[in-house]
Amino acid sequence: MSLIVQKYGGTSVGSIERIEAVADKVAAFVRQGHQLVVVLSAMSGETNRLIGLANQITETPEPREMDVLVSTGEQVTIALLSMALMKRGLQARSYTGGQVRIVTDSAHMKARIEDINSDTLMSDISAGTVAVVAGFQGVDVEGNITTLGRGGSDTTAVAIAAALKADECQIYTDVDGVYTTDPRVVSKAQRLDRITFEEMLEMASLGSKVLQIRSVEFAGKYGVPLRVLSSFEDGPGTLISLEEDDNMEKPLISGIAFNRDEAKLTIRGVPDTPGVASRVLGPISEANIEVDVIIQNVSDDNTTDITFTVARGDMKKAAEILKKTAEELGAREVLTDPKIAKVSIVGVGMRSHAGVASTMFQSLAADNINIQMITTSEIKVSVVIDEKYVELAVRGLHTAFGLDAAE
Amino acid sequence: MSLIVQKYGGTSVGSIERIEAVADKVAAFVRQGHQLVVVLSAMSGETNRLIGLANQITETPEPREMDVLVSTGEQVTIALLSMALMKRGLQARSYTGGQVRIVTDSAHMKARIEDINSDTLMSDISAGTVAVVAGFQGVDVEGNITTLGRGGSDTTAVAIAAALKADECQIYTDVDGVYTTDPRVVSKAQRLDRITFEEMLEMASLGSKVLQIRSVEFAGKYGVPLRVLSSFEDGPGTLISLEEDDNMEKPLISGIAFNRDEAKLTIRGVPDTPGVASRVLGPISEANIEVDVIIQNVSDDNTTDITFTVARGDMKKAAEILKKTAEELGAREVLTDPKIAKVSIVGVGMRSHAGVASTMFQSLAADNINIQMITTSEIKVSVVIDEKYVELAVRGLHTAFGLDAAE
Repeated sequence: MSLIVQKYGGTSVGSIERIEAVADKVAAFVRQGHQLVVVLSAMSGETNRLIGLANQITETPEPREMDVLVSTGEQVTIALLSMALMKRGLQARSYTGGQVRIVTDSAHMKARIEDINSDTLMSDISAGTVAVVAGFQGVDVEGNITTLGRGGSDTTAVAIAAALKADECQIYTDVDGVYTTDPRVVSKAQRLDRITFEEMLEMASLGSKVLQIRSVEFAGKYGVPLRVLSSFEDGPGTLISLEEDDNMEKPLISGIAFNRDEAKLTIRGVPDTPGVASRVLGPISEANIEVDVIIQNVSDDNTTDITFTVARGDMKKAAEILKKTAEELGAREVLTDPKIAKVSIVGVGMRSHAGVASTMFQSLAADNINIQMITTSEIKVSVVIDEKYVELAVRGLHTAFGLDAAE
Repeated sequence: MSLIVQKYGGTSVGSIERIEAVADKVAAFVRQGHQLVVVLSAMSGETNRLIGLANQITETPEPREMDVLVSTGEQVTIALLSMALMKRGLQARSYTGGQVRIVTDSAHMKARIEDINSDTLMSDISAGTVAVVAGFQGVDVEGNITTLGRGGSDTTAVAIAAALKADECQIYTDVDGVYTTDPRVVSKAQRLDRITFEEMLEMASLGSKVLQIRSVEFAGKYGVPLRVLSSFEDGPGTLISLEEDDNMEKPLISGIAFNRDEAKLTIRGVPDTPGVASRVLGPISEANIEVDVIIQNVSDDNTTDITFTVARGDMKKAAEILKKTAEELGAREVLTDPKIAKVSIVGVGMRSHAGVASTMFQSLAADNINIQMITTSEIKVSVVIDEKYVELAVRGLHTAFGLDAAE
């Protein structure tokens, strides 16, 4: 008998038929003797419908009221699933974030969980009742409804699993696990049985949008075993955990991630004095623009070039700021390029193996792909390339690192 | 400067355009210097949509979960109106029933308000903030979401007005006040400027469905002046208050109510022994069927006839129960008639005036309408007649009691 927290996303509860299917799945687990807490998202499309209503009134709805509005989406699904479970003869009980009490800070629309009162849920579990909890939402200490931001239901599930010391947190989604890369790009991509939190973080932040990144951080921090599974078909999914796979045959690289949603900016001919990077990047981050890859080249004429990437939607704003900085610093010019992509190889195995990066560069060279930027961390190597080569690059790397599924 | 509680029903907030119109109305009151608490229903159709979702899962949804589900309807409108008010430069803040704290008993789907914490609302009002409260809902002492049953938003508004000692509780609806009778039946029906709580109770319970009856009882009990107005057009509406109109010209009768939604049952030839009425009617009320008019005739052969009316939808079930009782008591027969209507004249004026009933009977006789049952109370006289005569009867009585509007 295990204590399992299961989370079902919007498409998994997108219709009454889907909610009934989730109820069947939950009932099967309960009949196997497991104790369950179920965390739900809103029915797919519902959150957008609610936001659409607000936007008919104003382009800039007040965040507190936005949270009151959108939090109704999950409240609907928890009630419906509880009814469906009771119809199957199970004991079930729904809880809004406020009822559990999931206490967050007061940052509406992007709140962070500060505390979860596990008493009510534990007493339900002990009584054999399935607790059905609204994901994505909480209350601040004053009782105002808050939401965690898009994808926050994953975080709710992990946080509850941590608070209850659950044996596993299962995230049901519309894919059956984490893949070596996007199967739409590489047909030979394989589902991973296991992956470490660190690897998953690199994969998620680089565009493999299976799990919300904050939920992975949370799970890693509290050591909650996290499993990604499909709510549409049976299968073991992918287990994300602290331990590395001890399979000796495991390839050096777990997966290949890529992201087309970045743009590159370069400021050229900046006088190379101490603090120049912060002079250049400070105003960017003050404008709440997140900077990803940063490269500074050493120069020989007492000037330097700094290149960095931002989300593509932020490029225009970042370029304006950068031009102002360029004038102030007497820099030579500002260049922008929206047509780039970042491709990364990720794997804890590379920690203890030299030569991973050079295998990557050889593979790209063999396909005649020019590398514009390179960054590395302990468990990943990323390159920025021309966007048009991204599929070619990913397919080549997938083969080069032995990730292709057998024919 | 007055403290006003305003309630807007489902059609008044049925679309974004209507919500914007309500915001305009509220803003105008605030700019006149009034302090406002606004109570809202769900957008028209939304509650039925939610119930429809539940009924796709089960015919008998669990009441606690039903309340979690349907309470989202008002939560959506309070957020949207608050946004619309802020767009107009007003301070506004939404509250669910649980956030206010409107404490009810635990009778889900038909809860009764036990207590309202007025602290939060009062501090908003003092700060010049419009408090926008979800009608129809509350929480029990354990924090479970409850609803007051259909029409409960009126009750929420009155209860808040009582708790805040508001100067007036205004119920905005799709009619511009309380009429002497249904204008669809009598074109010369007139809007009443004033009516007493007692009269309104008789009018409401008899089918003039302007206000939820429980809210009128509540207002009467706490002496909250209640005004019914149109949210679609300007006008004074109808004030419902403790005091009678002191206008000497006031007619004896305030209005004529009628109800086509009843059915008549008769048990004939029951042995006339003490307790026979309770033997007959006890099983009916045990089956949760509400009995309205009851008549027992004295008989001369030691048997008696008992006739009563129930809601038309309950007739079949009531007849089954009555037939069983008839067998047990050795009664002669059971008769049912779904095609009846109840017509009532209502007015506090009749207390001090004889002859009101006979004017009624004369009017009906002049139109050749046979009276099947008669009941009277201090401020009303009701007759049960064949349903097909209801319009004829109401028009005749409206003229006979001098209620017709001048040409």
